[in-house]
Amino acid sequence: MTRLFDDPANFAEDQLAGFLDLYADRLRGVPGGVVAHRGERPQVAVVIGGGSGHYPAFCGTVGPGMADGAVVGNVFTSPSATQVYSVAKAADQGRGVILSFGNYAGDVLNFRIAAERLNAEGIDTRIVIVTDDVASAEDEDKRRGIAGDFTVFKVMGAAAAEGLDLDEVERLGRAANAATRSLGVAFSGCTLPGAGEPLFEVPEGHLGLGLGIHGEPGIEDVPMLKAHELAALLVERILQETPASAGRRVGAILNGLGATKYEELFLLWGRVSARLRERGIEIVDPEVGELVTSLDMGGCSLTLMWLDEELEPRWRADAYTPAYRKARAPLSGLHAADAIGGAAAVTEIPQASSAAREFADRVRTVLATIHRTMVDNEEELGRIDAVAGDGDHGRGMVRGARFAAERAEQASREAGAGWLLRQAGQSWAEYAGGTSGVLWGAALEAFGRSLDDAAESYSAADVATGVRAFADAIGDLGRATPGDKTMLDALLPFADTLQRATDSGVDPAEAWRSAAQAATAAAEATKDLRPKVGRARPLAERSLGTPDAGATSLALIVTALAKPPHGQGQAHEQNRQGVTTV
Amino acid sequence: MTRLFDDPANFAEDQLAGFLDLYADRLRGVPGGVVAHRGERPQVAVVIGGGSGHYPAFCGTVGPGMADGAVVGNVFTSPSATQVYSVAKAADQGRGVILSFGNYAGDVLNFRIAAERLNAEGIDTRIVIVTDDVASAEDEDKRRGIAGDFTVFKVMGAAAAEGLDLDEVERLGRAANAATRSLGVAFSGCTLPGAGEPLFEVPEGHLGLGLGIHGEPGIEDVPMLKAHELAALLVERILQETPASAGRRVGAILNGLGATKYEELFLLWGRVSARLRERGIEIVDPEVGELVTSLDMGGCSLTLMWLDEELEPRWRADAYTPAYRKARAPLSGLHAADAIGGAAAVTEIPQASSAAREFADRVRTVLATIHRTMVDNEEELGRIDAVAGDGDHGRGMVRGARFAAERAEQASREAGAGWLLRQAGQSWAEYAGGTSGVLWGAALEAFGRSLDDAAESYSAADVATGVRAFADAIGDLGRATPGDKTMLDALLPFADTLQRATDSGVDPAEAWRSAAQAATAAAEATKDLRPKVGRARPLAERSLGTPDAGATSLALIVTALAKPPHGQGQAHEQNRQGVTTV
Repeated sequence: MTRLFDDPANFAEDQLAGFLDLYADRLRGVPGGVVAHRGERPQVAVVIGGGSGHYPAFCGTVGPGMADGAVVGNVFTSPSATQVYSVAKAADQGRGVILSFGNYAGDVLNFRIAAERLNAEGIDTRIVIVTDDVASAEDEDKRRGIAGDFTVFKVMGAAAAEGLDLDEVERLGRAANAATRSLGVAFSGCTLPGAGEPLFEVPEGHLGLGLGIHGEPGIEDVPMLKAHELAALLVERILQETPASAGRRVGAILNGLGATKYEELFLLWGRVSARLRERGIEIVDPEVGELVTSLDMGGCSLTLMWLDEELEPRWRADAYTPAYRKARAPLSGLHAADAIGGAAAVTEIPQASSAAREFADRVRTVLATIHRTMVDNEEELGRIDAVAGDGDHGRGMVRGARFAAERAEQASREAGAGWLLRQAGQSWAEYAGGTSGVLWGAALEAFGRSLDDAAESYSAADVATGVRAFADAIGDLGRATPGDKTMLDALLPFADTLQRATDSGVDPAEAWRSAAQAATAAAEATKDLRPKVGRARPLAERSLGTPDAGATSLALIVTALAKPPHGQGQAHEQNRQGVTTV
Repeated sequence: MTRLFDDPANFAEDQLAGFLDLYADRLRGVPGGVVAHRGERPQVAVVIGGGSGHYPAFCGTVGPGMADGAVVGNVFTSPSATQVYSVAKAADQGRGVILSFGNYAGDVLNFRIAAERLNAEGIDTRIVIVTDDVASAEDEDKRRGIAGDFTVFKVMGAAAAEGLDLDEVERLGRAANAATRSLGVAFSGCTLPGAGEPLFEVPEGHLGLGLGIHGEPGIEDVPMLKAHELAALLVERILQETPASAGRRVGAILNGLGATKYEELFLLWGRVSARLRERGIEIVDPEVGELVTSLDMGGCSLTLMWLDEELEPRWRADAYTPAYRKARAPLSGLHAADAIGGAAAVTEIPQASSAAREFADRVRTVLATIHRTMVDNEEELGRIDAVAGDGDHGRGMVRGARFAAERAEQASREAGAGWLLRQAGQSWAEYAGGTSGVLWGAALEAFGRSLDDAAESYSAADVATGVRAFADAIGDLGRATPGDKTMLDALLPFADTLQRATDSGVDPAEAWRSAAQAATAAAEATKDLRPKVGRARPLAERSLGTPDAGATSLALIVTALAKPPHGQGQAHEQNRQGVTTV
């Protein structure tokens, strides 16, 4: 949705005014569009254009090594012949003009009328139409221009910058178009400035194959694909259209339509590049990003330009425009740093008593229970966290618990509980990241350090001491105090209750249960607190009425550890009894 | 929404793998993140980082002149201390390490633990925390880091590239942070990969003031603002936070959060820059675009860094990273092209008879009616056009008709109908753009050329001839034939019926009405046609059942011209009678 405007009817003009203000040091506005500042040596003027709404196409690619001027129409609307004429006239340097644009009826009409007028005035003007979209027609001449605009403009911009003459620039532009193929998919439609509804919708769970860049629906709706499936589809359908006498080297663009994130494009690129290499293709200077967009449309397209000895140097040449900049110099002379010497040091497992090894087995069970509890509660914890935070608490806890449990499971059975907890804590912190990850990781490590793996037996007091070490680590590292609305608000009542009950000789299972009850009540009570540290602090008021996510997850875990789960229940209960009575 | 992935749980790793493949010539992956290839001369290593989901922060700004390494956490999750340690170790060149990141609890914890470990190993490591978000806390030390990350990293990256030592790079980084202030707004929430719901929603018609970059809601929801109001709010609130002893020169970033389009940012930048200049601020090397994003969140933020003689050269220095590239050399020696000689030639109005001037008045009424008819039907025409096209037909017709009617209204009363129609046609084509704009413009011009402004009277036959010229122009220029599903399919029956009725001596008003009925029936019948030219062609099947938008608008117009509208009706009808009976 387009939200930033004063009067939607003036959106195109207003955005252009801001753009011109921003880049006043390198280009200037003329009636109908923009013209790049020029160098000392006159060159063939490459003038590109089309409607607005495709940024960086078209004005964002005006500058040294690319276009000399861009005609700027209204949103998704061809510029008028008068606009084209005006921009071309201002861009002309006495060596002739190339007008280049995607193959749409309005653009063809208006650019053609302008070319007639320019030629009539003695300005030699040629037209190079881009027709890269393989989905839009069988006949190559009838195909639409989508992100292939970019490869064609790039080749002509480089050729003009070299000082080639009009015939040559035109010829290379046509060669670039003949060597370029694109196919795109849409995930969601786009909305015109001021409109309340998108121009089209892709049905839920589908993608539109063969997208247009003017908010047209795709040619065909197909069920949504995973990234590797989409990569295969794009690559294979484009390779089917390989131009005759094409070589193995291609310039490639994975273009984002607007709402699709760079991270998503990178992920897809990993799949696309692998597939291309499998098919024997050598990729030259790939570009992944937004080069030809369609307002806030979700989707992407793959463009390949098969290179030859004429096209490759122009594809690789330097350029410096508002949105597209490429240079060899800054990368020359760089070299990869040496690989780091060693991986993580191999940790030697210290000698452990049979009691410590037995205790280690119980640690494995406990970690598995923690993991299961977090999986069961991931969604609810995320919901609580999203009220005033970023909603990742459930996900982070699941991830940390999973890696901790896996580490413990994979570790040698010769290890004692102390060593195992330290390893599990390190894994938790390393793979979960985030605040809860480092706190839980450090706390488990601290618990582990409190245990002597050479001990002949362990008592309930050892567990209470370990819990105390766990709590101290979190207090030290998190720098929070009680009442700050953190996990500490549940953890301290838990540790205190457990300590008191243990000191009074209460049955260990009963002591744990009463401590878990105290933690649960305390976690619930955090809903009346305002956060004082951490990410939720700026949203303190909003968080009133919702308990702290970290306190809640702790309460859930200690409660789960108090009661035997189904199935494994008996063994689990026996284990706990075992731990505390051995 | 995030749609491209194979397994959402591996999103961060998978996107990083694609990124590393793409930029393998300039950086490499290490456990925990990425490290830039290094130059010949060792320099202080600036290592930045945080969670994923903020691209180009953080790995997209690694390279010459910026960071030496970036630690890559999971989506919106701080990296672990182990990851930070690993990347810093790989980036270190023997001159010490700066760890820099936004002020979030998880990042602070993990980077601090890594710094302790690095220092313990003898690698001199400093921490520079970014705290630019003025909305997040009163106390500057407690503020979050948002897009101000970029200015602080930029200054330190430039300082390190100059070869300054660790103390100096650290000092300049702290100075940059102290000089930087940001404020952001959110228009819509963002959705974690694999999640079905966004982390938060901004209520309809509102914006969230004081956004976070991890999908946290804004500090406060306020009613949506127009662009100039939002610009004023951002500028004024940030200027209230002007650092003590600040000068007048600022580096500026208008940062997009993800879903907000570049065009919208440019539009807003036009308002922001004007406001800043009104307040006496000089803007240095502004950046408008996506520098620190938050997945697909809608929104933006303004960052100002007040410059002094130390910060300004580092802000302006060259850099070359995947997502941020800046160089002076390509722009040196360029100059603005001369302004174009003359504006459009002043058109001399040819002598016109009193009948031609009277006819011109009726042309004004006709154009006003066309404009009103298009305004009344804009939405419906857009809806029809969007079925297989880009939905801009109604908008384009309104725009063209408006400028044609205005041109006619403003023209001298000495002008005849022929000259006036030619002028109106030129205005229509020039301001509407697009296919319908150029066709309607040329057709009106052709109608105008068919009229002799020296004639002493005009007959119904002259109108029929003019309509024929109108239709011929569209046939010639549009290169369509009947049955192609274009406006021609309504226009030809209209022109033929009018010609026949006129030739048979039918009352002129009655002749027009019957022709309008023929056009309406023919327009309706286009719903059974498949488009053969124009933008709708690739979606031919989808367009079955919907009439052609251009044929429909023509039918609406000739129908409106057949019946007197309310109010002006009488005069209108008289005028028509007048034209055809004088």
